[in-house]
Amino acid sequence: MKAIVVRAPASAEDMRWSETSAPSAGPGEVLVEIKASGVNNADVLQRQGAYPVPSHDSPLLGLECAGVVRALGEGVTEWSVGDEVCALLNGGGYAEAVAVPATQVLPKPAALTFEEAAALPEAACTVVSNIGMTSPLRSGETFLVHGGTSGIGSFALQWAKAIGARVLTTAGTPEKVARALDLGADVAVNYREEDFVAAVLDATAGHGADVILDVVGAAYLDRNIHCLAQDGRIVMIGGDVSPARLDIAALMARRGSVSATTLRARGHAQKARIVSTVRAEVWPLVERGAVRPVIDTVLPIAQASRAHRILEEGRAVGKVVLAV
Amino acid sequence: MKAIVVRAPASAEDMRWSETSAPSAGPGEVLVEIKASGVNNADVLQRQGAYPVPSHDSPLLGLECAGVVRALGEGVTEWSVGDEVCALLNGGGYAEAVAVPATQVLPKPAALTFEEAAALPEAACTVVSNIGMTSPLRSGETFLVHGGTSGIGSFALQWAKAIGARVLTTAGTPEKVARALDLGADVAVNYREEDFVAAVLDATAGHGADVILDVVGAAYLDRNIHCLAQDGRIVMIGGDVSPARLDIAALMARRGSVSATTLRARGHAQKARIVSTVRAEVWPLVERGAVRPVIDTVLPIAQASRAHRILEEGRAVGKVVLAV
Repeated sequence: MKAIVVRAPASAEDMRWSETSAPSAGPGEVLVEIKASGVNNADVLQRQGAYPVPSHDSPLLGLECAGVVRALGEGVTEWSVGDEVCALLNGGGYAEAVAVPATQVLPKPAALTFEEAAALPEAACTVVSNIGMTSPLRSGETFLVHGGTSGIGSFALQWAKAIGARVLTTAGTPEKVARALDLGADVAVNYREEDFVAAVLDATAGHGADVILDVVGAAYLDRNIHCLAQDGRIVMIGGDVSPARLDIAALMARRGSVSATTLRARGHAQKARIVSTVRAEVWPLVERGAVRPVIDTVLPIAQASRAHRILEEGRAVGKVVLAV
Repeated sequence: MKAIVVRAPASAEDMRWSETSAPSAGPGEVLVEIKASGVNNADVLQRQGAYPVPSHDSPLLGLECAGVVRALGEGVTEWSVGDEVCALLNGGGYAEAVAVPATQVLPKPAALTFEEAAALPEAACTVVSNIGMTSPLRSGETFLVHGGTSGIGSFALQWAKAIGARVLTTAGTPEKVARALDLGADVAVNYREEDFVAAVLDATAGHGADVILDVVGAAYLDRNIHCLAQDGRIVMIGGDVSPARLDIAALMARRGSVSATTLRARGHAQKARIVSTVRAEVWPLVERGAVRPVIDTVLPIAQASRAHRILEEGRAVGKVVLAV
């Protein structure tokens, strides 16, 4: 089969669509013929050599896809050959086919194209695992998500609105602010022009945000704490992970918590539980159109280098998807 | 009535057992004749002027007591005059009587003296609210509590053992290490002689601690993260709250969380929920002797200054209690 082959660290232009060995479905796995693959920042970091691949996972790029089931491994009974699906992958999505644990597969929502379905698994699993399972965001709470037009951000803000939260977000241009409001944000702050701490406290009459989903990292930690509500939760899922100053007194005054996670490093049992929660709690919202994939660009997979450049330049509104 | 009267900031010797106005039971409150009062670090900080009292609370010292119900405020039906009780107070415990919300009162365990019962509410509510309710410590998990012979520590380690956790603790002298082991700790590390990070990783074959309860603060943050297990939780409840360096990458590699809380600042609804959880989940363990109050010293309340000196010098093993 063909796949994007690259040896990290490498530049975007080093990625080549070329022949490599085909996967097969091991016990508990299904083999998916890939129609489309979502592109994530983690892929860019992996290609740059900054995100080591767990040793038991595919060395190929790509953490989510949509396609058609072509073979079933031993013991798989919940899927059939020919099923249209999308999946959370342990690597291997930039390819014509991938083997994936059956527990990480989701039915393709009927109303969505393969390109749209490929844009959902990573965002949905990231958001649900971080703010939908332990200490979940609840209806009536205030949610702040940074980067409201990113792949994660655009999903998170729609989902939070759908479950009844009040949603505040940040974005870096007037166009992105407008798009975030279109997507349902109650308040969108241009962080280049306004202090988001003051804006959040203003918009909540001093209450602050009950839950903050952060993709910026170190530079925002202190500011996030200072606009956090009592009993509030900050979840850091990426960005700059260099050490930062933690204002313990300010966190304690709010009885706040700071957690930091990645989806990729979770074990199979956790991923299975997350995917099953996504299917139960998010898929119905997708089916009825309350949460829609937001797609910036679809490119043929041979142009993966262009896709990576778009992410590196921070230009995308929503997801970049590769059509296979 | 008489109470310990002091105007913060003040030294321990400035505390005077003298006449002041008596409280009465407002709506939803009970009036308790105090037989004994527990002494907490928060009292010492309050007397030193470092712990501002919430404006709606008693300005008198004392966050827990045991005694006898002498009057019921409007609407109180769950207690009767003459009931032997102990209670989590919003201040006012260093006195002959105190008014307290009925929802913060617990029955005095039959097997305990008033002095013993007065030693439990703060420790039980602190431990249960931080590691027994949200993201609770579970049977089979590894628990690290710093200062295993302190009032909080001695309660926390017994409770964690009783619910089936493996318990590691730190202490600062060979005598305290021995006492922590007596109380049921599986491993007790003398932190003056040994690196507790290495000791915890050693004792857990590299797994680390699933839950860490910390009373030290800033100086331990980085070390706590480096002996935290995957999906582990650090809860900071006191000590040095000055800003500290947060190693975000290390926290993310563990999918860890850091929270910081105080019990005192919680609202009445939260305190009611915590006390009710303590009654349901801790009181049966106390009744059958699986968790015992550990008392260092009982002093007449007129010697409150001596009690504070014992806490300031870090000499106590277990609680210091004032007999009224």
